[in-house]
Amino acid sequence: MSRLDSMIRRLMIQRASLDWAMTRIAALPGPVLEFGLGNGRSYDHLREHLPNREIYVFDRHVAAHPDCIPPADRMILGDFNETAPAAVRRFGGQAALIHADVGSGDHAASRALAVGLTPHWVALLAKGGLIVADQPIPSDALEPLPLPEGAPGRYFISRRK
Amino acid sequence: MSRLDSMIRRLMIQRASLDWAMTRIAALPGPVLEFGLGNGRSYDHLREHLPNREIYVFDRHVAAHPDCIPPADRMILGDFNETAPAAVRRFGGQAALIHADVGSGDHAASRALAVGLTPHWVALLAKGGLIVADQPIPSDALEPLPLPEGAPGRYFISRRK
Repeated sequence: MSRLDSMIRRLMIQRASLDWAMTRIAALPGPVLEFGLGNGRSYDHLREHLPNREIYVFDRHVAAHPDCIPPADRMILGDFNETAPAAVRRFGGQAALIHADVGSGDHAASRALAVGLTPHWVALLAKGGLIVADQPIPSDALEPLPLPEGAPGRYFISRRK
Repeated sequence: MSRLDSMIRRLMIQRASLDWAMTRIAALPGPVLEFGLGNGRSYDHLREHLPNREIYVFDRHVAAHPDCIPPADRMILGDFNETAPAAVRRFGGQAALIHADVGSGDHAASRALAVGLTPHWVALLAKGGLIVADQPIPSDALEPLPLPEGAPGRYFISRRK
């Protein structure tokens, strides 16, 4: 599988997972939080499908396409290890959906980052809220869900118990 | 259509176009030339499917994933407007396939760049050779071909008459 193949596969499973999750949270109020703006593709997808939902995005810096930059009051800049605990004080127990796309080229570091952030993500989610992530999110407070049909690959969806 | 949707669509049509073209040049000797290494995804795809073909890549600089960097003697660095004419002196009339992926965020500049490079690409191609491009390649010496089925979108394939 070439890097072109794997990129297509990764983006398709990301989209399928987000599309499935956005449908499932339709009746659940609360903001959507994205950790990892990156180039802004998935943020653009979320805001297109959730025009009436508050979407807050967390990242260390803004490196997105100019068309895909969140409003200043919904873009929370800084190290995840500082902004995530701060977010719990603001949004604890409220988030309907978290998209955690925090992976980098360093697989071990990406996984460790996600493990460290998991307690904060759990604390942010409303009961029944979903987390869609590019890393495993191990927590007894989360119920792992199967990926939507037609979307095999390394993406992870869990529901807050 | 979100930027996530359009990226998936663009990569799928790029892959379908390259896959189709690689099959079609199987009996045509000559090197493969790629203008625009970028992050190296399509280069990785080409070399995976064409292990016995010489692949030369042109770009201003190397910004690819470390796993997707061509050997030094097949990576030709510099401004396309200088490296393309130089390539004609070396590979004129020999290339079985050119992948021209030279677009940037600036659509007008991308199109103008491709128009300026088209005479060199035409001169590089063997008779019957194919060019797969992310920009229109207007030339009387090229026969535009339909995109492979299942790959709608803005990609362009032409055959050297």
